[in-house]
Amino acid sequence: MFKKVDDSIRMHQEDEDYTNPPEEFIGLSDFTSCGSDQLSFRAGDRLLVHTKTSADWWWAELGGLCGYVPSSYLKQDVEDSYLKQGVEEDTSEETSEDPWQDEEYFGSYGTLRLQLEMLSDRARTETYRQVILTNSAPLRGKVVMDLGCGTGVISLFCARLAQPKAVYAVEASSIAEHTETLVRQNGCEEVVTVFQGRAEELELPGTVDILISEWMGNCLLFEFMVESVLQARDRWLREGGMMWPSGASLCLVPCQALDYYTERMGFWEQPYGLDFTALQSLAQSEFFSRPRFSHLLQPEDCLATPCDVITLDMLTLHVTDLEKLRGQFTFIVEKAGTFHGFTSWFRVQFQSLERDKTTLELDTGPYSEPTHWKQTLFMLDGPISLLGGETVSGIILLHRNPVWRRHMTVTIQWRISSTEETGNCMASILYLLGVNCNYHYLKCSLIPISDRRCGMLPVKNDPLSNSPLFTTYLQVYPFYTY
Amino acid sequence: MFKKVDDSIRMHQEDEDYTNPPEEFIGLSDFTSCGSDQLSFRAGDRLLVHTKTSADWWWAELGGLCGYVPSSYLKQDVEDSYLKQGVEEDTSEETSEDPWQDEEYFGSYGTLRLQLEMLSDRARTETYRQVILTNSAPLRGKVVMDLGCGTGVISLFCARLAQPKAVYAVEASSIAEHTETLVRQNGCEEVVTVFQGRAEELELPGTVDILISEWMGNCLLFEFMVESVLQARDRWLREGGMMWPSGASLCLVPCQALDYYTERMGFWEQPYGLDFTALQSLAQSEFFSRPRFSHLLQPEDCLATPCDVITLDMLTLHVTDLEKLRGQFTFIVEKAGTFHGFTSWFRVQFQSLERDKTTLELDTGPYSEPTHWKQTLFMLDGPISLLGGETVSGIILLHRNPVWRRHMTVTIQWRISSTEETGNCMASILYLLGVNCNYHYLKCSLIPISDRRCGMLPVKNDPLSNSPLFTTYLQVYPFYTY
Repeated sequence: MFKKVDDSIRMHQEDEDYTNPPEEFIGLSDFTSCGSDQLSFRAGDRLLVHTKTSADWWWAELGGLCGYVPSSYLKQDVEDSYLKQGVEEDTSEETSEDPWQDEEYFGSYGTLRLQLEMLSDRARTETYRQVILTNSAPLRGKVVMDLGCGTGVISLFCARLAQPKAVYAVEASSIAEHTETLVRQNGCEEVVTVFQGRAEELELPGTVDILISEWMGNCLLFEFMVESVLQARDRWLREGGMMWPSGASLCLVPCQALDYYTERMGFWEQPYGLDFTALQSLAQSEFFSRPRFSHLLQPEDCLATPCDVITLDMLTLHVTDLEKLRGQFTFIVEKAGTFHGFTSWFRVQFQSLERDKTTLELDTGPYSEPTHWKQTLFMLDGPISLLGGETVSGIILLHRNPVWRRHMTVTIQWRISSTEETGNCMASILYLLGVNCNYHYLKCSLIPISDRRCGMLPVKNDPLSNSPLFTTYLQVYPFYTY
Repeated sequence: MFKKVDDSIRMHQEDEDYTNPPEEFIGLSDFTSCGSDQLSFRAGDRLLVHTKTSADWWWAELGGLCGYVPSSYLKQDVEDSYLKQGVEEDTSEETSEDPWQDEEYFGSYGTLRLQLEMLSDRARTETYRQVILTNSAPLRGKVVMDLGCGTGVISLFCARLAQPKAVYAVEASSIAEHTETLVRQNGCEEVVTVFQGRAEELELPGTVDILISEWMGNCLLFEFMVESVLQARDRWLREGGMMWPSGASLCLVPCQALDYYTERMGFWEQPYGLDFTALQSLAQSEFFSRPRFSHLLQPEDCLATPCDVITLDMLTLHVTDLEKLRGQFTFIVEKAGTFHGFTSWFRVQFQSLERDKTTLELDTGPYSEPTHWKQTLFMLDGPISLLGGETVSGIILLHRNPVWRRHMTVTIQWRISSTEETGNCMASILYLLGVNCNYHYLKCSLIPISDRRCGMLPVKNDPLSNSPLFTTYLQVYPFYTY
């Protein structure tokens, strides 16, 4: 069952690991294998780790079976670690590293650079302004919570454009120190009260009628601020209260990305009269094994009509739902083109407080005004030609990291079907979205846990399969650094 | 003598520091005060630190005098720290952190992303190619060292365009593993030998005739790879050998930067009908207290003819010279304009191996083809109107950080003189260039240790002064993170 890791992995291996005796580890979360050389386990299972093959993938044993397991899903047995380091002082990584990375997270939002990036995003900020403006009549006398208020711009819109009874502006980062000044300077101190602190530790005078927040990240959920919003909703939103946004969806489309592909792959052919083709496969794995967050998809590069793959109702969504979200898609290719990857973005809706009034929407996709989120591009290893009428169908899985709570894995499994029974293929993309705690926050980062291959296969005409044919395992970087 | 810190500093202060008893610290390097509230000291001096006012500036005492001192120039008394933590295990930061940051430094150059950025910089790579090409006759039979060879492109130029006896391609980062493949693939393995390792630990078969290297960083010296080059020169370059580049200079010009200024400062006036002017001073200090590394200066934004402020001869330069470099400048304003800051870049020269043949040059300034280094912009707090005929004169000091060996402080002290005896001013810019170990390397970062103010003062007609009138002290960030 043991499969030799490929060269790109072996390069990173630490040889000394091979000589260590097996260690016992405990599963932090369920893990379902995605290939025959992986080992499934459940939270609480005790696994024997034989080989720390790479930083991310370990060769482990459970109930007589062996296979690769992701190291980030395991923790060391506490008793075992006590024996090694003495009980009086716990210097294990678990205690010294914050799985929420609050220092980096709130630290980054304490900078004016990020605040300016968000504020000067007109599509974003104007949508919230319009939501307040079009609801100004029913907002009269209401109590509003603005969660993660930043400089307080939404709270100021509420106080200036409507007549709410009170606005609670909640912000955990240090920018809150300036928010109060801005509230006073705009003459809103009678209505707006600033609360500096984490949403989870919030103490308010009472419940609120409306909870407004701009919590969305790349691929909608990245950074998982949404958990704070849901917790605040459960504690402070009155029965029948309104959430803004009221709904959210993750959108996906298969696309071309020729410029990006050429920029990263074209160079190696014959630069300065030399042969650099030996670096092509390295370039492919370095550049395309992580999503590109700052991608601006041109409408003409969409190969099909985008679709919503995951839809959330902000009133009924549970924190536990965030652990695993699954969506399906079937795209019909509208014009022949080159399939370079998938692009994803999000839309959020703001239901009116009045019946039958229009729901406003913020759409961060390629057919709307660009926002500071731009779009997220997941590249294939290599381009595939698609013909009009072919279908690209599959599933997308968002799996929240069991340890790093602001991270997630994005898995896209897909296949191409053609009525011609020629020129179709099947492949899988597996990503871990990670927080780049050191670069500014919205230029977030990602951790690949799987390479993805694509190839031309005979049409099978079978339904969506959960077991992709091509899966290999790459390094996981706890903090991806560019 | 105690001066109250201003609000922007107080905001960051940790109150608990005020209650601690004084601690003894030892000077790591000489420090010369730049203002009446700073305290000069020498390496080895024992200072009593009363208050850790900010992370970077501490209120300390020496020989009965008190003043602010930069915390990065101090280390804790070892005996004192032993008392606190027990002698058997030294967990102090000094031992755990590498002042050369080699892991981050060589790690970043092991990525193809940085290699691609350098390789696809045509102005840079073509200059080296032209140097080899125009010297192909005298290179015949010579031994060449290519230090920090990366993918080996310069070594390949040597082997393919000339007939050297041997080329030693030296590279410390992991990219070297691929360099050997490229050498073979280009049929150069008879001539080029790859050595993977640090230049300082290099063992070569013998001396070399030519040492070629692309070691330049932002503001010429940033990253201080030049130290490795000088050490390799002293060990391996034969008497009378050639250094390529043979000379280098740092260039400076006072400039306009209206777009950048407006982008960062213009927003706060009246966004979305609100008053955000309260954030202007915060924006100024956050955005303009660090140089902008990726600036592309337009020739029309130069207010005077650029000049070389520091010039280095690569054959005679000593490693110790790098600790402190000083240059002077006098710019005559050529046309009226708005003075937003200074822009700096570098030029390097490649002397021919043959007498009387042309010296080739790589100029990374605004009048040449843009390179991946672009230029570095040091902004003033606020714009100043300049009239044609006025002069901007002063000094620039590059002071290498005594602890973090890849960092440096850039100090620019300047004044404006007008023959009219009106409309002139005097100010000082004080910067610490720092390595951003977490973002990719060439988007390097900087650590401000001083705010700079400018204002309109009566003409004094006195010569350059070393004591600027306006100096305040800001936070130092050990690793600046965007």
